[in-house]
Amino acid sequence: MELFYSKDIEGGICRLDHDESGHCIKVLRHRCGDEISVIDGCGTLYRCRIVSDSHKEVTAAVIDSVKDWGSHPYRLHMAVCPTKNNDRYEWFAEKACEMGFDELSPVIGEHSERRILKTARVEKILVSAAKQSLKAAVPAVNEPLFVKEFITSFADRQDTLKLIAYCFDDENVPRRSIKEVLKGWEGGEIAVMIGPEGDFSKVEADLALQSGFVPVHLGDSRLRTETAALTAVSAVYLHYME
Amino acid sequence: MELFYSKDIEGGICRLDHDESGHCIKVLRHRCGDEISVIDGCGTLYRCRIVSDSHKEVTAAVIDSVKDWGSHPYRLHMAVCPTKNNDRYEWFAEKACEMGFDELSPVIGEHSERRILKTARVEKILVSAAKQSLKAAVPAVNEPLFVKEFITSFADRQDTLKLIAYCFDDENVPRRSIKEVLKGWEGGEIAVMIGPEGDFSKVEADLALQSGFVPVHLGDSRLRTETAALTAVSAVYLHYME
Repeated sequence: MELFYSKDIEGGICRLDHDESGHCIKVLRHRCGDEISVIDGCGTLYRCRIVSDSHKEVTAAVIDSVKDWGSHPYRLHMAVCPTKNNDRYEWFAEKACEMGFDELSPVIGEHSERRILKTARVEKILVSAAKQSLKAAVPAVNEPLFVKEFITSFADRQDTLKLIAYCFDDENVPRRSIKEVLKGWEGGEIAVMIGPEGDFSKVEADLALQSGFVPVHLGDSRLRTETAALTAVSAVYLHYME
Repeated sequence: MELFYSKDIEGGICRLDHDESGHCIKVLRHRCGDEISVIDGCGTLYRCRIVSDSHKEVTAAVIDSVKDWGSHPYRLHMAVCPTKNNDRYEWFAEKACEMGFDELSPVIGEHSERRILKTARVEKILVSAAKQSLKAAVPAVNEPLFVKEFITSFADRQDTLKLIAYCFDDENVPRRSIKEVLKGWEGGEIAVMIGPEGDFSKVEADLALQSGFVPVHLGDSRLRTETAALTAVSAVYLHYME
């Protein structure tokens, strides 16, 4: 199924941006009168009929729409430290989107080697992953922020199961597996923090625990940052699977 | 932790091949008397002392060894059709190895576009993934074979939970989720078949069912071949997680 993406759908009129218009007219050779399917990135699929086939700006009239198209029964916010190698982060974003998640916060930890991330590239990847996996919602990507800022911003969130996965052992703080902790959760809101190659600092972990985050482990395997992050997404995806 | 890989460990003597020797002597500058850790790819970790530090062939004397180092409590054989794009297949192999699996069979289906796979590249990736995730066992990679050959070779395997994940709907054959099917399994041997971009053919699916394969789905998301394969590995990994 061929999908287009537009942030400009209003009053029954849908406009495609320059790239999407070029793809629609030059590559797929659509013309006035053709029907196209457009996702708004917010969860709704629109069936539209092209009324202006300019390869710079396609305009289409909305025929009908489907809400929550390709949605999942939970809301997952992943806070993942950027990996040394950008491809690995982008790979994680693509795969997590295929399975289903909702928001990505690149978080910078005390032990983070990489302290920047180009969110624009990740956003592009998420749009194509959403199209490819037939979802009308594209996960939101936030600007990078510090681990401590992220924790603080979630301190008062009582409606959310807040998880932090770290590797170092602390006999005072026993960790259960993410699978066990998810079992006890009836709600739909989940946030998971995944640390950098150098793990979270003890200070960051303590602050998270004080702020109501539950410490979890991801099993016995030693996983790379991006693999750990995707394992957490699969754990959530599988938890809600019937 | 720095690990070397050797298939040549016998009578208390471990030899590193040309590449590993160069890395050990030229890059890491080890010399006679140094202690190194070596995995044999079959599950055992050896602590050794270098007795000859030639950068072409390092020889080391085994001090002691640990069996089943970094092992997992199941045996998982993944039969996955090659993806159009090789990187995606290699990516799957790396991530699956990090989580834990044991054998990879590239299978060629009736709908497979890509009908070849260079197993040597995948083997290299698996060796470094095993080192990176601290496992002494490196998953075996078989030569590509046809889907029907793979199914036939498993027809008499009663000790194995045999799963086939396909996408097309067949109201005569209700599918349960991989999670549900795993719940009912007490054994440790599991085999999972993942089809190509064009899915398995009806003929292949029927043959699998006749041969005792259980049809499963991987949830509501439409997943790429490599994502579907990794989701199956995570489902098994999480099933055995305590």
